[in-house]
Amino acid sequence: MSDTTPEQLERIAARAATVAPIWAATTPLERATALVAMADALLDARTELVATAMEETGLTEARLVGELTRTAVQVRLFADVVLDGTYLDVRIDEADSEFALGVRPDLRRFRIPVGPVLNFAASNFPFAFSVAGGDTASALAAGCPVIVKAHSGHPRLSEQTARVASTALEAAGAPEGTLQLISGRSAGVALLKDPRIAAGSFTGSISAGRSLADVAAARSGPIPFYGELGSVNPVFVTRAGLAERAQEIADGFAMSVIGSAGQLCTKPGFLFVPAGHGLGDGLAVRAAAAAEQRLLYPGIATAYRDRRDTILATTDVKVIAEGRMRFDAEGQGWATPTLVSVTAAVLRQQRDRLLDEAFGPLSVMVEFEREEDLAGLANELFEGNLTGTVHAAAGEDTPAIRALVGWITGHAGRVLFGGWPTGVAVTPAMQHGGPWPATTNDTSTSVGTAAIGRFLRPVAYQGAPQELLPLPLRDDNPWQVPQRRSIPGQSNSWGSQATLASH
Amino acid sequence: MSDTTPEQLERIAARAATVAPIWAATTPLERATALVAMADALLDARTELVATAMEETGLTEARLVGELTRTAVQVRLFADVVLDGTYLDVRIDEADSEFALGVRPDLRRFRIPVGPVLNFAASNFPFAFSVAGGDTASALAAGCPVIVKAHSGHPRLSEQTARVASTALEAAGAPEGTLQLISGRSAGVALLKDPRIAAGSFTGSISAGRSLADVAAARSGPIPFYGELGSVNPVFVTRAGLAERAQEIADGFAMSVIGSAGQLCTKPGFLFVPAGHGLGDGLAVRAAAAAEQRLLYPGIATAYRDRRDTILATTDVKVIAEGRMRFDAEGQGWATPTLVSVTAAVLRQQRDRLLDEAFGPLSVMVEFEREEDLAGLANELFEGNLTGTVHAAAGEDTPAIRALVGWITGHAGRVLFGGWPTGVAVTPAMQHGGPWPATTNDTSTSVGTAAIGRFLRPVAYQGAPQELLPLPLRDDNPWQVPQRRSIPGQSNSWGSQATLASH
Repeated sequence: MSDTTPEQLERIAARAATVAPIWAATTPLERATALVAMADALLDARTELVATAMEETGLTEARLVGELTRTAVQVRLFADVVLDGTYLDVRIDEADSEFALGVRPDLRRFRIPVGPVLNFAASNFPFAFSVAGGDTASALAAGCPVIVKAHSGHPRLSEQTARVASTALEAAGAPEGTLQLISGRSAGVALLKDPRIAAGSFTGSISAGRSLADVAAARSGPIPFYGELGSVNPVFVTRAGLAERAQEIADGFAMSVIGSAGQLCTKPGFLFVPAGHGLGDGLAVRAAAAAEQRLLYPGIATAYRDRRDTILATTDVKVIAEGRMRFDAEGQGWATPTLVSVTAAVLRQQRDRLLDEAFGPLSVMVEFEREEDLAGLANELFEGNLTGTVHAAAGEDTPAIRALVGWITGHAGRVLFGGWPTGVAVTPAMQHGGPWPATTNDTSTSVGTAAIGRFLRPVAYQGAPQELLPLPLRDDNPWQVPQRRSIPGQSNSWGSQATLASH
Repeated sequence: MSDTTPEQLERIAARAATVAPIWAATTPLERATALVAMADALLDARTELVATAMEETGLTEARLVGELTRTAVQVRLFADVVLDGTYLDVRIDEADSEFALGVRPDLRRFRIPVGPVLNFAASNFPFAFSVAGGDTASALAAGCPVIVKAHSGHPRLSEQTARVASTALEAAGAPEGTLQLISGRSAGVALLKDPRIAAGSFTGSISAGRSLADVAAARSGPIPFYGELGSVNPVFVTRAGLAERAQEIADGFAMSVIGSAGQLCTKPGFLFVPAGHGLGDGLAVRAAAAAEQRLLYPGIATAYRDRRDTILATTDVKVIAEGRMRFDAEGQGWATPTLVSVTAAVLRQQRDRLLDEAFGPLSVMVEFEREEDLAGLANELFEGNLTGTVHAAAGEDTPAIRALVGWITGHAGRVLFGGWPTGVAVTPAMQHGGPWPATTNDTSTSVGTAAIGRFLRPVAYQGAPQELLPLPLRDDNPWQVPQRRSIPGQSNSWGSQATLASH
């Protein structure tokens, strides 16, 4: 796939601008029908898409089939979200001549699509965070046309996916150009600067994400940029938790690090375990049994090799499983899992060498002495993360655990108890995001139905005649969307009628 | 009020960081009680506060009394929002072993306060957008401590307001330092760069807002910055609307431009009227009858004089009411209203001289020939705005009006029908924001109960035992907040059960 030329880019941006009002004006049924058609088409093309993905990414067939299914189901979920209509956040304040602040006019507010979205695809989920992934699905569901900047790690798959998805969308009535594809780093940056682009999304490295966020912020008209960047996802095991299910923890940890060759933004990069945990031998056996896996593309492999070399060469790092790392004749990297162990004191001393994310099948076990120190230690060492996890015993509730939960809550988007962060459910309550550098914008999520909110902005209509109101705001509510009404003379919020008396 | 020193700034930032978890942990009743106490204290101090405000801003007593009342009621509304709990956006997905994407864990998500907020106060609303204004009230309600950077236009009032508000908050149980004040431009910039600050808000000029937004975006850990900047708020009058109520339109327009000496971000800067409208003489009389008003502070007055000079010196600008502009011995500017008129063709030709916001009692009437051209003309001339208004006849519904409503919807946060944008109701459905340069972030509002969302971020808990969950997420729901539940086996959104069959 050759880089998009400036002339092609101009045509693509112009088409997105033309499509934006047409796609935004679709009814819930039209938009949802197109999304379902896209989901079905992805599943129908499974054989072709998975074969190309295996070649280009080195990921296993089982993983890719699962990921494609998840991706298609995710598109369908967003069709449900569109039909449901809660995402419009319709608020209606009826006119109120008795309002506390003088006459209140009739005000009706909902959320509209922001306009064309530029989505930078990730390498590590060639379906779920790529051309037809969550960013694309949520933006399309919001009513925004999408331009995907293909990841260079899977160019043919990107073209195939775009063709399958856009053909299905258009056959189901979406305007031509609702989903478009571009290629090339400089084309992506140029388009991010284009005034016709209304928002950007990204999943990838801290350095690339930061430089794109800076471009978005420096535009003459800045736009929101939703980047999901780096995370080391610390996991904390209490002494009682370890005593209760050491085996289960070792199994889960190994699977979470080894699966997909550790190339997941939610991979547990640090496992805090009580000194004397006794997990080392079992983990070494599990790691040694893991098949060699190809890393996604040479750039990832080189970066992983460098991080791994640095970690292995650090003083007082104990090797649990050294693993292997080699490059084949085509320059592709292949690896087996590497597990190391340090004391909390060493991690503190060697933080400059050990703390950065190692994107690949490597994790660091950290042996601690006192559970009471964990929250303070985490606070000293870590910035923002996507997740943080506590493994405690059933019913265990100590000040140390509460302090840890408090610290994770303040520094991550998802707090897990007894599970592993590498499974990210696509549901209404999922939060996939977190304070910098986990994301560039921690008030949003890139997974789950709430992800649609990134591509909407509110508009209010004051004193509008019914016939000129958008349909979701009308009293006859032809689409039957949820409407939250403030009734004259009642409380100015919705749920409770509680108010406090003045003194 | 002298500028805050670096040593003071350090103490203030440290205190805000200390207070943040304490204020965040308050119960709804504790937080709402403190807010109500603050609202009451502001009203109790009315005499002192209004007197100082009159001296420092030149605004009238009636205007300031009204604004202080509005400000206190706004604080109370946010107490209601806290008690109501809808703002927490609680979402609960029960565990579901039959979920479309495999086993779904128990996931519970709500919104938590982001941490200390730095609020840059505005000059033109010394109560409503200053120390105890909407940004402060919404951030406190969200559970964030607030540091206000006082506006140099009303330093004594800022100190008095901060003292009244913080004394009341603390007497009602809020920790010391929940609301703090700083002074000086460089202190504000330095604090915006401080890693302990989690979000910024601002109301003011495009240049100042842009430079602060750039500072927030360039931090080593970027933070959200909610700036409300410039807007010219075009108003469009149809021929039938004019025929129906010319008098009412002239009255409303004059009042909207003259009130508060036109120093409002929602002042109608351009009034589009059909050629031959016949409003000129009546408007000249209304403008001539307006009392001279002092502008807020010398910087505003100088900028206004320059904009007015430029507009009056522009070729083919017809003067409806020239008004006066003078400076007194203390350097304060005084003005009476200036109204000018141009044809649409002249506005197009002289856009470089005429289109920028004139912050003060000046507005430009634009005479047009064909209603059908208005949407295209607006699209050619204007960027983002806070508001856009249509004055049509009762029941009038034409393609030209629909095109205008469509254009306003795409370029503003609020669309008005037959009213004037200068009244901004504080209600659940209000939207005060709009595409750049109206704001730096058009996905949020700075007025209305939804403003609280700027200072919250979502966190999800996965597989948590009930006793370790935050109270709003627990099944026994001790605070009785609204919880939206996804029930296993049902649709993955809330309202409708509609789903589309696959092909």
